[in-house]
Amino acid sequence: MQQVFTHLFEPRSIVFIGASQHLFKWGFSVLHHIVRGEFEGEIYPVNPHGGSWYGRRVYKNLDEVPDNIDLAIIVVKKELVSETIRRCAGKNIPVGIVITAGFSETGKEGAILEKEIVKIASSGGMRLVGPNTMGIFSGYPVCMHAIMAGTHIRPGNVGLIAQSGNLGSSISYRFVRREIGISRLVSSGNEADLKIEDYLELLEHDPKTRLISLYVEGVRQGQRFFEAAKRISKKKPILVLKGGTTPSGADAAMSHTGAMAGDDAVFKAMCRQTGIIQADTMDEMVDTAGMLLTQPRPTGNKVGIVSLGGGWGVIATDMCVSSGLEIAPLGKEVVEKIDKILPSYWSRKNPIDLVAPNHVTQITDSVGILLEHGIIDAALVLGLGYMSLRAKKWLDSPVIPKSEAVESARLMSAEEMKLFDLIKEQSKKYNKPIIPVVDIMASDAVMDNDNNTLVNYLDRKGIMSYSAPGMAIRALAKVVDYYKRIEYL
Amino acid sequence: MQQVFTHLFEPRSIVFIGASQHLFKWGFSVLHHIVRGEFEGEIYPVNPHGGSWYGRRVYKNLDEVPDNIDLAIIVVKKELVSETIRRCAGKNIPVGIVITAGFSETGKEGAILEKEIVKIASSGGMRLVGPNTMGIFSGYPVCMHAIMAGTHIRPGNVGLIAQSGNLGSSISYRFVRREIGISRLVSSGNEADLKIEDYLELLEHDPKTRLISLYVEGVRQGQRFFEAAKRISKKKPILVLKGGTTPSGADAAMSHTGAMAGDDAVFKAMCRQTGIIQADTMDEMVDTAGMLLTQPRPTGNKVGIVSLGGGWGVIATDMCVSSGLEIAPLGKEVVEKIDKILPSYWSRKNPIDLVAPNHVTQITDSVGILLEHGIIDAALVLGLGYMSLRAKKWLDSPVIPKSEAVESARLMSAEEMKLFDLIKEQSKKYNKPIIPVVDIMASDAVMDNDNNTLVNYLDRKGIMSYSAPGMAIRALAKVVDYYKRIEYL
Repeated sequence: MQQVFTHLFEPRSIVFIGASQHLFKWGFSVLHHIVRGEFEGEIYPVNPHGGSWYGRRVYKNLDEVPDNIDLAIIVVKKELVSETIRRCAGKNIPVGIVITAGFSETGKEGAILEKEIVKIASSGGMRLVGPNTMGIFSGYPVCMHAIMAGTHIRPGNVGLIAQSGNLGSSISYRFVRREIGISRLVSSGNEADLKIEDYLELLEHDPKTRLISLYVEGVRQGQRFFEAAKRISKKKPILVLKGGTTPSGADAAMSHTGAMAGDDAVFKAMCRQTGIIQADTMDEMVDTAGMLLTQPRPTGNKVGIVSLGGGWGVIATDMCVSSGLEIAPLGKEVVEKIDKILPSYWSRKNPIDLVAPNHVTQITDSVGILLEHGIIDAALVLGLGYMSLRAKKWLDSPVIPKSEAVESARLMSAEEMKLFDLIKEQSKKYNKPIIPVVDIMASDAVMDNDNNTLVNYLDRKGIMSYSAPGMAIRALAKVVDYYKRIEYL
Repeated sequence: MQQVFTHLFEPRSIVFIGASQHLFKWGFSVLHHIVRGEFEGEIYPVNPHGGSWYGRRVYKNLDEVPDNIDLAIIVVKKELVSETIRRCAGKNIPVGIVITAGFSETGKEGAILEKEIVKIASSGGMRLVGPNTMGIFSGYPVCMHAIMAGTHIRPGNVGLIAQSGNLGSSISYRFVRREIGISRLVSSGNEADLKIEDYLELLEHDPKTRLISLYVEGVRQGQRFFEAAKRISKKKPILVLKGGTTPSGADAAMSHTGAMAGDDAVFKAMCRQTGIIQADTMDEMVDTAGMLLTQPRPTGNKVGIVSLGGGWGVIATDMCVSSGLEIAPLGKEVVEKIDKILPSYWSRKNPIDLVAPNHVTQITDSVGILLEHGIIDAALVLGLGYMSLRAKKWLDSPVIPKSEAVESARLMSAEEMKLFDLIKEQSKKYNKPIIPVVDIMASDAVMDNDNNTLVNYLDRKGIMSYSAPGMAIRALAKVVDYYKRIEYL
């Protein structure tokens, strides 16, 4: 399998069979994305008409293409796929990605054709991705966007396998917009040959992949999947979004990729036993992965909430409790310590409501006291970003003279940035998660002439923030549960 | 109460007591936001030091200010509030907004002071908003941003009452970024005098308010709230986000605004009996309100799903079923009709998977057949936006010659815009909701030099789209449930 990994994700040469100049065709898009990306290996477009493809030579057939090709991408008509694979195998191409659709997902006839292409490939020692796949992305050693979705994906540490190209694209985009990169993405299509179990094992040994994210409709080799997941979960978290959890959804999955969705209760139990984290939505998957990748491991479920506004504290408390997290009681000693740093009317319990702190150190000092006394496993800081927002309002105002606005805004913004750095340091020092919730009003605010928002800034600093308390809390609950479960694996 | 409405939301003159030139103070911010906004009435800043406020005269005391003032905004020290209110009442000012905090939310002493200010006000015939409020916004007849949050709010049809200024700001921002405007926003603070029940009745008779959105921690006059909600729900939907649904959350609410959160089961039952729609998060509130404001009334729970990708259909089906919506069976006749317009391998059941349609009319024609046969109450169209995204990719590409890219992109974008118009027309024709789900990858895509995204375009056209199927489906389930329940009120 190590060879499959290399040929598939780190090819030095690609033959692209079915190259098209027609912008509307996949034979154009996928090739376009590879060429536009940073791929540095050889690319050989093939089309019986020959000619050129935007300045590149198009080869009339495989015979014209040099030997020692690592990867074939096949975007020909359904009727031509068998013969194309036969020729690729004849040329000793070890792996092929079959983009072409119209196989088992369309019915009996297609299923017969699908079996045939696998037979042809395997008798020639060739492995197949797909058919009916949107393609793959690989982030290393250089980016290869052999995928319909586009060139938006950036390299990083999340390995993503999706039994739906659309969901694979959408999930990868959701990661990338939060500055979380992708190591490898596979749209696994009908999984006629290589299956989710294979890709899971490939990512298991991939040093670039620190976390695995899956969209699963059905698992064909249950026992193998179970064992791999259990083994991997101890080393790398596996997040799953499951499609086909209801009978009607399972039915829809059947006509999508021909996958048997199976019994949802069985799948859920399997997740619990293997340490797999189930996400309910694509966004929750990204929120949870971001926390796993950027925060220290929480060792329990006791939460301390420090809030810059009472309402935030109230809804966050409700959400913690309903997600199985515990609002840590403060105890007399802690209350006395906090008494010394906060104005007399502070809430005297958890959540700690700072209203409008006089100085940002009131925030970190409060969190520090909770951590120092070991009464919490994680801290949530709510209502951040308001200083940057205020600074921006001053700068945009026609009322305030520029001279006054600029200096005040600079001080205000600098203070907030210092706060984020302090929070990051503190989290490192105590080795516990401190999770910043920056309200969407602030995180959306454009901070420079390049349209960078506050959340962009923080993401680039590796500080995963959340634009509503619920998003942070649902992710934290899943993270806490994951670490608890893998202790018993 | 009609007079309170006029003085509070449509004042011709405001006295602002506690005007400050210090950018960091609320006595600056709130005044700044009124001045920066479009408010056209008179504003009289008051501060014992007199002088000027960025070019405006500052009055040393109330005596210097003309008579016939509609509204007083009070941002003085806690100790000065009683005397200030006494003077305002003496000057026959009918309504005051007390921004100043430090009252019942801080304990017994504050509670005594709070009672005192209410007594002084009412003996002078004056009504109070707050204390401990962030202020109010009114969208008509002109915008008045008498609020800490800023000047982001735009006028529209949502009336918003929040027992937390931060949540009021955040929710209003979430509405406005989706081009859903606010008629009136009240941060109700400690509700020492005017209470949520009063504001509810004010909005009941406000012709500018088509929908009411509430953040509630506790209701003081249960019976009155119940009756008002029941009466209003028949005319205007009421959406509620409840804080303090858990014992710990209720405890936090107690120290926030002094509100008794009450028993959550009782509150839930009350919502069901009055037609109130409960939202679980701020985002869900906006998703649901947007659907109520832009779509026809669904008359049942049968859904038709038309999807431009199999995976979307699978997860949407799961979510519909788990939200209590029904995936309408197609029936022989409908299948035969759709057979005529789709390629032979289409799914032949609901969800209808179009894969990559050859022409956008395949989408609307499929939806049309479902509506024509009366087998669905609402349609979901999944995977839209991919054409605009593709057009954008062509324009951005260094590979495709500009001449070729521009024309193809124009055609592609035009085709998609035509589709959205067709969907809107079709929805009107059949008087049933057709809900577009535009994946976030497409809805985020910047479409012009002013950084407008596709979702911005659609929002401005009054087309509420959703960036994930789950968001649309949760909202639809709540909308269906609301209309069913108000039939029995």
